[in-house]
Formats: sequence, structure tokens, C-alpha cells
Amino acid sequence: MNRRYNIAVIMGVGLLGGSLGLALKARRIAGLVRGVGRRKESLDIAKSVGAIDEISLDLKAAAKDADLVVLCTPAALVTQALDDLRDTIPAAAIVTDVASTKAMICAHAEDTWPRPLRFVGSHPMAGSEKFGPEHSDVHLYDGSYTIMTPAQDQDATAYHAVKALWEAVGSKVVELPAALHDTLVARSSHLPHITAACLAELAAQFGDDIRPVIGNGFRDLTRIAAGRPEIWRDICLTNREAIVESLDAMGERLAAVREFIARNDAAGLERFFESGCEARRKALGK
Amino acid sequence: MNRRYNIAVIMGVGLLGGSLGLALKARRIAGLVRGVGRRKESLDIAKSVGAIDEISLDLKAAAKDADLVVLCTPAALVTQALDDLRDTIPAAAIVTDVASTKAMICAHAEDTWPRPLRFVGSHPMAGSEKFGPEHSDVHLYDGSYTIMTPAQDQDATAYHAVKALWEAVGSKVVELPAALHDTLVARSSHLPHITAACLAELAAQFGDDIRPVIGNGFRDLTRIAAGRPEIWRDICLTNREAIVESLDAMGERLAAVREFIARNDAAGLERFFESGCEARRKALGK
Repeated sequence: MNRRYNIAVIMGVGLLGGSLGLALKARRIAGLVRGVGRRKESLDIAKSVGAIDEISLDLKAAAKDADLVVLCTPAALVTQALDDLRDTIPAAAIVTDVASTKAMICAHAEDTWPRPLRFVGSHPMAGSEKFGPEHSDVHLYDGSYTIMTPAQDQDATAYHAVKALWEAVGSKVVELPAALHDTLVARSSHLPHITAACLAELAAQFGDDIRPVIGNGFRDLTRIAAGRPEIWRDICLTNREAIVESLDAMGERLAAVREFIARNDAAGLERFFESGCEARRKALGK
Repeated sequence: MNRRYNIAVIMGVGLLGGSLGLALKARRIAGLVRGVGRRKESLDIAKSVGAIDEISLDLKAAAKDADLVVLCTPAALVTQALDDLRDTIPAAAIVTDVASTKAMICAHAEDTWPRPLRFVGSHPMAGSEKFGPEHSDVHLYDGSYTIMTPAQDQDATAYHAVKALWEAVGSKVVELPAALHDTLVARSSHLPHITAACLAELAAQFGDDIRPVIGNGFRDLTRIAAGRPEIWRDICLTNREAIVESLDAMGERLAAVREFIARNDAAGLERFFESGCEARRKALGK
């Protein structure tokens, strides 16, 4: 029951946008994929790897005759794109995004778009520390989860179309309220990322001396710190409340461990490390 | 120029001890490897996988005729073992350990053993979250770094013998003062481990809801939280000062990031994430 689109517009042709373009074409979900971006070089690469068929630097012009628009730009640019699209797109067009933070974006759509809402927020949990259209992968979404954060007054057709879209490219859809989504990803992704960057900074303070004592644990643990600074800046700025809350919770946990150590509390420390082990198993569903 | 030992005693036949036994035998560094431990079951497994030739539950008795003793027990048990060995071992016997914390252990040896000191502290940076003699791996030390933390009044023969031992099993030796070693591993290993356990706890607080938003980043980042609680308890208790200092430094960095977010400071956040990226490259020597 896959819907087919005549013209799909993908704004932002990085890893997520480029991979989506490949998947839309490979699975014949879109007749034509039009890539929109700010930099012609990225669009040219996306076209050369087959992720898009056409190039545009103007979202409004590109979306005028589209029946599907997927916003794959950093979170901070999605609200502007929603403003640009509101009075431009055909009445029946389906619009979604892939940003890692949802409450601010969905609230903006609810505040400014006509009802029932044809924009539906999405967050596919796919990708890696790689970025750029040259890493586009037709299988990127295979086996991933996509969180959808529908509004109260959501257009049912749009909701089902977006759900079918993610399922068609291999993702499993889970529905969450936008605020809960943001709280959860603050814990599972944003706080860990900030923490990894801090750990890398604290290790690097010792210059070359630290290298012999860097093991696989440190390497694995700080891998996510290799992500793009501007993406993570925007994530922090569009999920401020949940991240601040997570940072405060982290501060409290670290302070509790500090107290165990300062008090020489062997039993407290052993319980803490047991709880960490057990928590990891639970969080990973093991 | 490998030295050969007639009787090597390995106390503690977990991953590190078992793998060392296999390597000593495979490379014909020891004629006979005697495993010492508290639990006969572990020793039986170590013997069945070929890591040791003989079994003993009594360190003093086992070490009486040894020319090499390697203490592979958790850090907190090494000082007791040093007491047991001091008046027992032959005068020419070489003694080292593999504990992850060095200052407390080396200070104990310096305070209680005769000079020049025949015990030399070692910390091979090998191993993983696996444990137990059943995971013994003859190649575990291949390509690893071993930090040696010699005392001021070190017996030169003992120092060179221990260095040659680690090199013979495939490790590259780096020398560091014990206190600096402990400070560095607090940053590269102990703080990251504590942090990973806290992150796992904070994610697990949301129960099953968190699972769809758990990605590879979280999985990699918290892998080290799967280590043995009693080992990590002992590491914390034998490296208290450096870990508390690291926890305080971490608290300050997280508080600084919290301020960037609370103040909506885009430039500050971008600099922070850039610095994290750059710091990781530097720490990994890239």
C-alpha cells in the first residue's frame, strides 16, 4: 500500500537527506526527487551519487508543485523552512522533517500552520558520525526506529502517509509526544554527546602524555564526539530545557559517586557500578 | 635476549592473568606456570585452557621457589600479596603486578620492602569488558602499551627483567611516575567508566520508553559500563584523589556547557563541540 509521489523535495542533502533520496528512488516511492540546499557543491555531489534528480537553491520555488517535502536541514533551520512552505505548497502536499529535536519545531508548525496540520514531525534514529551526501546509503534506514510526534489536530492522511513513507524505507515507527521525545533523546543522545566531548577535552589537557593510556574504552566512548559541531550546537539550542535538566541530573549522579569515593564507601561504590551494569542491560533491552 | 624463568607464579587467573600464562608458555618464557587464586573453580578453568600448569590456593607456599611472580588480582588485594611475598620469595625473584592504579601499591612496596626494590609496578593497557580465565587469549598483550612505574630506589635487574617480560609478550613499555600514571588513567579510563555508568542509569530511569531512542552512540559509549563492579569499586578506592579531581573537573565542564545552553550562547556551544572534536583527535594521536 505504498503511496507514490510525483515530485519529492528533499531540503538538505547530507547523510540523512541523500540516503532518503536514494531510498525513495530505489523503491520507486518518488517519480522525481528534487534536492534543495544552500550550497550548490553539496547538491552536485548528491546528484552525482544518484540521491537526487534535480537541484534547486530556492525552497519556495522547488516546493510549489511538490506532493512530498522532507526537511533534512539542521533543527534550527526547520522553522524557517516551515514558514517558507506554509503558503507555497499545494494543499495536498505531505510535509515532514528528520530533526533530532521535536517540541520546538512541532510547536512552531502548530502555532503557524492551518488546521488540520499537514506537517508531521519525524525523527529517524539513523546515521552515524559520518556526514555529507557522499556517504549516502540506500540502506541507511533499514532496521532503524523512526519516532513520529503527531500534533493533537493532525491531518490523518498526512500522518498515515508519513508513517508509510518511513516504513517503506525500512524503518519501524514509534509514536511519542514531542516533549517526551525530546526528554528521552536528551538522555540517550544529547547528554551522552556533551559528556563525550567533555571527556575528550579533559583527556587532551595532558597533551601527548595521555596517549599510551588511551584504550578501546575511551575510543568507543568518545566516538560520538566526532560529530559536526554546528549540528550539535543547534540540537542544544532547540532542546534547551530537557538538556539542562539532564545535565543537572548528571551533575547530581557524579556528585553522589564523588561522595562514595571521598567517604571510602566500598559498598556504595559496588552498588553504583552494579546499578550501571544493570541499567545498561535494561536500556538496551537485554 | 629473553630471560627464561623456571617457575612463574601468576596470582589471579582472570583475563589478564590467564592470557599472561598462555603467552609465557607459548613463548617459552617460563618452564612452569603456577596459578594462585582464592577459588579453585577459576584455577581449574585456567588449567583446562592451558594458561597454567599447576594450581595453588596459597601464595606464600606457591612463591617459595618462584623466580617470577606476577600479581594479577584486583588492585585492593595487591598490597596484602606484597606483605605475603616480602619474607617468602627467593632473593633473586622478580615481582610485578598488573593493577590499574599504581601510586598506592608502589608506595606500599617502597614503605615495606627491602632496598633496592625488587617489586616493579606495571599496568598493561590490555583487556576488555570480558573477564574470567575462559577468555584467556595468547595475543591479548600484542600491540598494547604497558606503563611501568619504577621507584627511585629500584633494583635495576628487576626493572629490566620486567620490561623485557612485557616486551616479550608483545607490549610496548612506557615509563611514568606512579602519581602521574594514576592522574592520567583517572582521565582516560576511570572518569569515563564512572560517567558511562551514570549515563546508563539516567537513561534506564525511563524504563522501556527509552529503547526506541537508543542508538549506536549510546551502545558504544556505555559499553565499558559492563565491566565488573568489584574491580571498579577497587579502582575507585585505590585512586581516590585523582578520580575525585577528575570528577570535579568534569562537573565544571558540564556546568560550563549548561551555562552556554541556559544563556542561548550559540558561539560558545559551537566552540565547545569543535574543541571536543579536536581534543578527541589529539588524545587518539590522529
